[in-house]
Amino acid sequence: MTFSVTILGSNSAIPTLQRNPSAHLLNANERLFLIDCAEGTQLQLRRFKIHFQRIRHVMISHLHGDHFFGLIGFLNSLHLLGRKDELHLYANPDLQQILELQMAASRTTLIYPLIFHPLVSDNKELIYDSERLKVYAFPLLHSIPTHGFLFLEQHHSTMRVRQPRSYAYCSDTACSEDIIPFIHGVDLLYHEATFLNDMAAVAREKMHSTALEAAGIAAKAEVKKLMIGHFSARYDDLQPLLDEARSVFPETILATDGDRIDIGK
Amino acid sequence: MTFSVTILGSNSAIPTLQRNPSAHLLNANERLFLIDCAEGTQLQLRRFKIHFQRIRHVMISHLHGDHFFGLIGFLNSLHLLGRKDELHLYANPDLQQILELQMAASRTTLIYPLIFHPLVSDNKELIYDSERLKVYAFPLLHSIPTHGFLFLEQHHSTMRVRQPRSYAYCSDTACSEDIIPFIHGVDLLYHEATFLNDMAAVAREKMHSTALEAAGIAAKAEVKKLMIGHFSARYDDLQPLLDEARSVFPETILATDGDRIDIGK
Repeated sequence: MTFSVTILGSNSAIPTLQRNPSAHLLNANERLFLIDCAEGTQLQLRRFKIHFQRIRHVMISHLHGDHFFGLIGFLNSLHLLGRKDELHLYANPDLQQILELQMAASRTTLIYPLIFHPLVSDNKELIYDSERLKVYAFPLLHSIPTHGFLFLEQHHSTMRVRQPRSYAYCSDTACSEDIIPFIHGVDLLYHEATFLNDMAAVAREKMHSTALEAAGIAAKAEVKKLMIGHFSARYDDLQPLLDEARSVFPETILATDGDRIDIGK
Repeated sequence: MTFSVTILGSNSAIPTLQRNPSAHLLNANERLFLIDCAEGTQLQLRRFKIHFQRIRHVMISHLHGDHFFGLIGFLNSLHLLGRKDELHLYANPDLQQILELQMAASRTTLIYPLIFHPLVSDNKELIYDSERLKVYAFPLLHSIPTHGFLFLEQHHSTMRVRQPRSYAYCSDTACSEDIIPFIHGVDLLYHEATFLNDMAAVAREKMHSTALEAAGIAAKAEVKKLMIGHFSARYDDLQPLLDEARSVFPETILATDGDRIDIGK
């Protein structure tokens, strides 16, 4: 059974021709979850040959533009392409009015049901629950309300051929040990690493993390593998970020637009 | 002196890997005007090596997503890149609240002055007036309030070495002879041609134009050259649209992402 994540964007803040800002696609047994939706995400989906209409759930971590400016265009394209199925959207409640205002301005009434699930809890919260998968939201430490997401496979007792797999998405966040209980032991942790550690003061001020800090959290949370991303556009060469993280946590990889990572392998 | 337009997007509705939706960049004597700003426009500017910060004026024709969903990201990137200069935005008044709500949600206060000029007139209106250039907005015929734009060079009497050049942008619009007085005799008319004429009924219903209709308007308005664009994503091959328009108006060209057209040459 598939349990993979495809990187649609690995940059922070500003789209570049090399790296788009944040969006991940989780495939859990052929159910598709979009996590964040920066401007250009719908083109990344096309580029990496992922069929839009198969996405049933969209999680938005927070309302900084590099995590949601592509959402309205994505929703609109689903509409224009004739979607019928429900789409579930999990996000800060402020997003609802932003979407409604833009729909009203263009006199658009979506032809499919868009079901909004406001993320309001400041603790771990179960937001999706099926036979095969549970998804939790949990608070991160950032300059505006921000949620991380934990995707956890569910196995029936008869199916216990291997451990259920897990994926945690933590972006954006300052380095915070408070998140460790939410991500402990996951197979793959995506943790932002906007800067190298020589910019730790800037990272703290902007409530982002360094590669070294992300690796420290991965080590303390005893995760199996760490993927770093949300890179500042100042870094053309990402090798120093990878080296820095691996100095603390060797099982680290770089998020790269278009890469698909099979989780738990 | 430069008087050119660069095509940043020539598709309608949905971004594709071949054609982005609407955005044009007018260069009038090295003053840069952005006309419409679909999702992905800031990446198109990068791709075609146009320096963001040189743009001083942005005109938005109407509030369908394929004409403005890239604006918030563009404004945000200017902010993150340290812009100091004023930016002038000309658009339907509803846009202001849409932008303000998104700025508020991300707790962003732009570090540069954004000066909003609401387009409210239902007749020809002078919206920019300098020694070298005048810009007019005028109403088009579409399903929501929509403006076309006329860019008109100004010459001092001592400089009358050649005729002042002119560019008109008409998208989106149903075929309407009402626009002829606004665009009469221009050097280059950009007129949307979403469909071939075998889809004239659909064009009428959606308040778009066919290639044949665009050419008919160009002929009646006695323009020097016609450029068609805003193509439906259904057309991979645009040659039939060009052939259809040229059957009525031979001086027709296709809008192509990345092309720069020197106006009046």
